Amino acid sequence: MATVKLIEYPQASAEVRAVYDDIMATRKTDRINNFWKALAGHPPTLRRTWQSVKEVMTPGALDALTKEMVYLAVSASNGCQYCTASHTASARAHGMTDAMLGELMAVVGMANETNRLADGYQVEIDDVFKETR
Amino acid sequence: MATVKLIEYPQASAEVRAVYDDIMATRKTDRINNFWKALAGHPPTLRRTWQSVKEVMTPGALDALTKEMVYLAVSASNGCQYCTASHTASARAHGMTDAMLGELMAVVGMANETNRLADGYQVEIDDVFKETR
Amino acid sequence: MATVKLIEYPQASAEVRAVYDDIMATRKTDRINNFWKALAGHPPTLRRTWQSVKEVMTPGALDALTKEMVYLAVSASNGCQYCTASHTASARAHGMTDAMLGELMAVVGMANETNRLADGYQVEIDDVFKETR
Amino acid sequence: MATVKLIEYPQASAEVRAVYDDIMATRKTDRINNFWKALAGHPPTLRRTWQSVKEVMTPGALDALTKEMVYLAVSASNGCQYCTASHTASARAHGMTDAMLGELMAVVGMANETNRLADGYQVEIDDVFKETR
Amino acid sequence: MATVKLIEYPQASAEVRAVYDDIMATRKTDRINNFWKALAGHPPTLRRTWQSVKEVMTPGALDALTKEMVYLAVSASNGCQYCTASHTASARAHGMTDAMLGELMAVVGMANETNRLADGYQVEIDDVFKETR
Amino acid sequence: MATVKLIEYPQASAEVRAVYDDIMATRKTDRINNFWKALAGHPPTLRRTWQSVKEVMTPGALDALTKEMVYLAVSASNGCQYCTASHTASARAHGMTDAMLGELMAVVGMANETNRLADGYQVEIDDVFKETR
Repeated sequence: MATVKLIEYPQASAEVRAVYDDIMATRKTDRINNFWKALAGHPPTLRRTWQSVKEVMTPGALDALTKEMVYLAVSASNGCQYCTASHTASARAHGMTDAMLGELMAVVGMANETNRLADGYQVEIDDVFKETR
Repeated sequence: MATVKLIEYPQASAEVRAVYDDIMATRKTDRINNFWKALAGHPPTLRRTWQSVKEVMTPGALDALTKEMVYLAVSASNGCQYCTASHTASARAHGMTDAMLGELMAVVGMANETNRLADGYQVEIDDVFKETR
Repeated sequence: MATVKLIEYPQASAEVRAVYDDIMATRKTDRINNFWKALAGHPPTLRRTWQSVKEVMTPGALDALTKEMVYLAVSASNGCQYCTASHTASARAHGMTDAMLGELMAVVGMANETNRLADGYQVEIDDVFKETR
Repeated sequence: MATVKLIEYPQASAEVRAVYDDIMATRKTDRINNFWKALAGHPPTLRRTWQSVKEVMTPGALDALTKEMVYLAVSASNGCQYCTASHTASARAHGMTDAMLGELMAVVGMANETNRLADGYQVEIDDVFKETR
Repeated sequence: MATVKLIEYPQASAEVRAVYDDIMATRKTDRINNFWKALAGHPPTLRRTWQSVKEVMTPGALDALTKEMVYLAVSASNGCQYCTASHTASARAHGMTDAMLGELMAVVGMANETNRLADGYQVEIDDVFKETR
Repeated sequence: MATVKLIEYPQASAEVRAVYDDIMATRKTDRINNFWKALAGHPPTLRRTWQSVKEVMTPGALDALTKEMVYLAVSASNGCQYCTASHTASARAHGMTDAMLGELMAVVGMANETNRLADGYQVEIDDVFKETR
């Protein structure tokens, strides 16, 4: 149970409703996720976070599906249940198949394993990797 | 400085050399990264980890570049310096441009921000996300 | 469900009861949180952890509310559900308003975003920050 | 060494210079930290991140020093060297004394210890903490 | 609720059944944990992960109980509920007593506290620790 | 470079010297690690942390070497360079061989991989693991 009250549309202020309206219009849906309803208790964070997510997740040099899968990979690594659940759904909605999810999680798992091996042995960065710019 | 001795090719056992040879052949290079030289102190881990990385990173439902970027995203989230450095280089070698790196890090940063907001408010998972299977 | 049995007061040993009594007296309450009941299975950890928490959370150069908010910020960043829930309650009991919680989480989210951007780009520490002592 | 080129003022585009100018004016300084110079390689992330940090760190229900100390607490918990170094300096500039830093780190350490104890024993959230709203 | 379908034995392919059979034979049990049923949606990950776990957890220079306790320590530190629950059970099955669990968690908690203190103060590594090889 | 001044013995207060003396007597050494010198800037944290570490690391149901390896496993998982370096040295001093370190890191890596797979798929805890008490 959230530690703050979820703000539903009918109870929302005009400022919050404007963000909700933009979320629904941008995502072509008529529902608002609990995440936004929780942020709505602090309208500046709701507005700023939505604007940032909207800007960051817009397709650009990376397509929408790749961005969703990266979001999911990070959320799984952080063990964030809410974001893992919601971005698994988003990634599927953008075309992620079971096979793609399987390979994605395989990479996530492997990266976490080798991250800890590299840290555990305090491996020094090869000179060649210091010149990647 | 690594907490274990880095095993160079000339000093390596036949078992270790076989892995080194496969790494160089697979990656079409004549050098071995410090990571593998550190793992070589425990040959079963060297062999198993290389076999896993090789299998997991082979293009399949996801292409090689996407896999490298996911690896980098996880490594940046974990704050692993070695893996961040080496997989930034790998991703660039597979075609990641500055613009792609910029968008990738923007997603990584945003995912970390919203992960903590969702955890910090203990947002409950929407019913609709429980039916993603 | 906890992986250890929760020790209730009537079943507790004299050693455990002494800690429970001090917790209730210090916090001016007549209940013991599940956290302490779980630790009570290993009395030395119960005693030591309570003594440390009691000492660390006593107002000093930082007031009690600031300490509770820092505790909450760390717990949210670590994704610890129990500590996030209990320290949200504690911080509210010490005077944290909805507006303060909103700003606190905004800082927590932003810190997590920029932490990963700094790590992801492996930004070198400015010389000026090396002379903070 | 950063994985991207640091953009200095003379080489910066007008878009980047505008952000740099705002950073220097807001912070009443004539230098730009490496963090912003690294982000400048992806101007939308530079602009968005600066706008967010500026908004989030402005004193409101929480004063500037409290916000800096929360930022530092999160950065230390995440093990982010850059952010720990830069926000230790910022917090000191906002008035954090050695005694305050000592107590801050004591809380950070204690929170990390109890977070893992609560997770390690999978302690269930007390009903009373579910009604904090 | 898992984000993928759990594959039960009767519905499993021959490839998956072969792994399930090996798990049950190795562990001398007639049940398969949910973890493996979730991985079974991506058979290569099921096979590879099981082979790795089987190899890594076989007694060698470290006995089986020590390995289970290390696994549990890492899982508790990562806040992974599933692995914490399952490896608490496994460690108990290998002989971990309540007293051993109590001391294990005490070490896990203390390590997390000092890790953050060392990171928070950016303590430089003593020269003597750089010569541990 | 540490963000606080390291307190050397000759400059230390009587309170700090008492802790230093106990550290050297307990560990049968004539040197103090940088970690303690950094904590010494806040004497209550120095005293409390040393007392806790001393109590927790004393052999009991678990022997000293097992405790050191668990400490190292957690430090490697958290990516804490200082604690990884110092506890690798401590574990070696308590008898950890290269083979033991190799197997330890293999378990640490594998635990991190499966932690993220379990979290990434949000695998539900098996009923049988809920009855481990």
